[in-house]
Amino acid sequence: MDLRDLFKGDYLNQEVTLKGWIKNHRRQKEFGFIDFNDGTCFSSIQIVYDNKLANFEEISHILVGSAILVKGIIIPSQGNQEIELQATSIKVLVPSQEDNPIQPKRHTREFLREVSYLRPRTNLFNAVFRVRSTVALAIHQYFLNRGYVYVHTPILTDNDGEGAGEMFRVTTLDLKNIPKDEDGNVLYKNDFFGKKVGLTVTGQLQAEAYALAYKKVYTFGPTFRAEVSHTKNHASEFWMIEPEIAFCNLDELMDIEEDLLKYLIDYTLKNCKEEMAFFDKFVEPGIILRLENVLKTKAARITHEEAIKILLESGKKFEFTPKYGEDIATEHEKYLTEEYFKSPVFVKDWPKEIKAFYMRLNDDEKTVAAVDLLVPGSGELMGGSQREERLDVLQKKMAELKVPEKGLEWYLNLRRFGGGLSSGFGMGFERLIIYLTGVDNIRDVIPFPRTPNSCDF
Amino acid sequence: MDLRDLFKGDYLNQEVTLKGWIKNHRRQKEFGFIDFNDGTCFSSIQIVYDNKLANFEEISHILVGSAILVKGIIIPSQGNQEIELQATSIKVLVPSQEDNPIQPKRHTREFLREVSYLRPRTNLFNAVFRVRSTVALAIHQYFLNRGYVYVHTPILTDNDGEGAGEMFRVTTLDLKNIPKDEDGNVLYKNDFFGKKVGLTVTGQLQAEAYALAYKKVYTFGPTFRAEVSHTKNHASEFWMIEPEIAFCNLDELMDIEEDLLKYLIDYTLKNCKEEMAFFDKFVEPGIILRLENVLKTKAARITHEEAIKILLESGKKFEFTPKYGEDIATEHEKYLTEEYFKSPVFVKDWPKEIKAFYMRLNDDEKTVAAVDLLVPGSGELMGGSQREERLDVLQKKMAELKVPEKGLEWYLNLRRFGGGLSSGFGMGFERLIIYLTGVDNIRDVIPFPRTPNSCDF
Repeated sequence: MDLRDLFKGDYLNQEVTLKGWIKNHRRQKEFGFIDFNDGTCFSSIQIVYDNKLANFEEISHILVGSAILVKGIIIPSQGNQEIELQATSIKVLVPSQEDNPIQPKRHTREFLREVSYLRPRTNLFNAVFRVRSTVALAIHQYFLNRGYVYVHTPILTDNDGEGAGEMFRVTTLDLKNIPKDEDGNVLYKNDFFGKKVGLTVTGQLQAEAYALAYKKVYTFGPTFRAEVSHTKNHASEFWMIEPEIAFCNLDELMDIEEDLLKYLIDYTLKNCKEEMAFFDKFVEPGIILRLENVLKTKAARITHEEAIKILLESGKKFEFTPKYGEDIATEHEKYLTEEYFKSPVFVKDWPKEIKAFYMRLNDDEKTVAAVDLLVPGSGELMGGSQREERLDVLQKKMAELKVPEKGLEWYLNLRRFGGGLSSGFGMGFERLIIYLTGVDNIRDVIPFPRTPNSCDF
Repeated sequence: MDLRDLFKGDYLNQEVTLKGWIKNHRRQKEFGFIDFNDGTCFSSIQIVYDNKLANFEEISHILVGSAILVKGIIIPSQGNQEIELQATSIKVLVPSQEDNPIQPKRHTREFLREVSYLRPRTNLFNAVFRVRSTVALAIHQYFLNRGYVYVHTPILTDNDGEGAGEMFRVTTLDLKNIPKDEDGNVLYKNDFFGKKVGLTVTGQLQAEAYALAYKKVYTFGPTFRAEVSHTKNHASEFWMIEPEIAFCNLDELMDIEEDLLKYLIDYTLKNCKEEMAFFDKFVEPGIILRLENVLKTKAARITHEEAIKILLESGKKFEFTPKYGEDIATEHEKYLTEEYFKSPVFVKDWPKEIKAFYMRLNDDEKTVAAVDLLVPGSGELMGGSQREERLDVLQKKMAELKVPEKGLEWYLNLRRFGGGLSSGFGMGFERLIIYLTGVDNIRDVIPFPRTPNSCDF
């Protein structure tokens, strides 16, 4: 049986059989204690065994990490847990060697990254990746229950979406022997797809096409950035959620974003109680209260211009002086969310020059209907916009921002055939997990992180 | 409001407001009919309008594909539907041009692939991609409700998993100017990850590591094959589901596979009634009955040897003669599932030479604990195995099959530290959708298919 079912049910004085791994092992002369877990829940159970067992000698030498089959009776516990297991038989299924890097002691997160194929066996990472799984499913449920269609937008693409992010090139050409024309240009027509292809930076443009068929859609899949960045917020491969809703304006979009955020916080607090208690105790004291407070407050909604005004009038000394028409720095986000509003903050109506080509031009012709959701502790969590549905305005914007129409004819066609009237946003999944767990390095919330010069396992 | 809610509720004689698209438009002198859909359900609703509306002239010229805002009263219908909408006002939100490729007539699937950003607006593809979304969520629910942890295994990887499939290379090197050493070898150390990296062909090996922490895990993500194959079953990018379960043997694995298959069939029949009725009528007559029959029968379980025996004794003339020790061809799968057993068939215990290195060697030392699930109509739907947990046996197999240990040291380490005792299988998601819908070309069940020389939108 699974340990999670054992903890949920009433098995006192009953015999049970479990298969799992030894987390800790303390032996004494005539008896011993094993911390046992099968991975189906966060808590371990204590196994007590004594020298009445025929293979007592063998058992007492089983190393941490070994897989065992244990039978025994559930009895009331003297220790932390309510119950423990009095073993009637213990059998080794797969022994562990002595040099097992995962031992019942504190390991640094840096060390554990070097053995990331073993780290989910530790308490911290076991909690992190169970929360990651739970939240992923909560996201699917949220959209499913509201009639959204889940779309698998392509990973391989010939357009770079944002017109910005650096892309990984994907090829089957022999790198030793790249075919070139007389002028030294690569002959992409000889490549697998007959053209220059890379890894997607966003599924948004394709999601828009689907929103114009299903009204409400979302993507949830991997995206890529080939930027050489070594911060704790950047990975080369990460997962993103991108909902897109037809006939939705910027105000309605903010409603959806806030509702989703609160749903996910509430869901996590309710369904990951043990894990959240662990984070609250060992990772970020106060995180549960911080998240509960978000549930009780309404997010502020201000324009970019108002944000700059608040920052300029704050009297705070910032490293970067806030400026109308320019982006908002991390320190500014921090002030707005943690000091001024003490809540999540939507900042909308951004200067058109610093935002992407597809965002809808406002009537002032200076700003676009874009909105960033900033949250205390993590900064920007979601970025969205109403899309430009007016073909002529869109083409003018593309020309201004030097986004070539070639390769995006189909995207323009959407506007020709009854479309373009939609809004959507993107949420970095890892950023959400960082926000919900307090584990503050993106390398520690991705099972096998990929960063510059690092692609192991 | 959403059309799906309108159809579900009782709105007779009430006023409603809808936003969506014109699917068909028949105008007469004094009134007109619009087939209207907002994408939230398969069925359209008929809008009736007449010349009492002030903008009757304008309305009667609105083209198919245009986005409109309509207000009106729900009345009993004279036609196929139970209700229709008597319009009190119709406003164009985004007009469509006359050259909209999607018109209310039959389009060939080949033509629609060329405008795959528009094809979900047709009945067939609207149904296909709604089923795809529904089944994706059914898969998540199936595993969630059984305590599995969902793992995002990496897309970028330096190992090729199966030791077989051809991989796409991923690079940020300047293809015009590839850095090479004196012997002409590519200097991968100058590349983004400092090594040779490609797109994953399977997440299994990494999923195994996680099964040894959580007992039950699954992956669901994109995988890639750089094979130049032009069949209707092959795409360069497709999604795969890979469950991995610790302490699970081959018999238990088959139980899980059969249970999952039946769950997904049952879920689809119950939750996609309109879409399945459409497929049954227009795509594959009899498909509902075929799927219902699978629910009633227990899948056969035979060894590879028994399968060959049945084929040899069948008296059938096959193009390829069945042979002990060799793979089973499509025509053989067809005979076993459609003629001999008339049910799904598990074929297990395959010759070790033709299967992957990680599959557990049986006691006969000739076969491995591998199993393929064959289904009537679609052939192989799932492929799984018990993994080799014995380090020495695994290393011997790798040497025999010429799989280098370099890069897989971590995978071997799993066996050193209490692991390896698990089983798992892979299921191609598109193959499943083909099986459930009867739409028999993989290009027609992927939103934006990628195949050799084709990577558009």
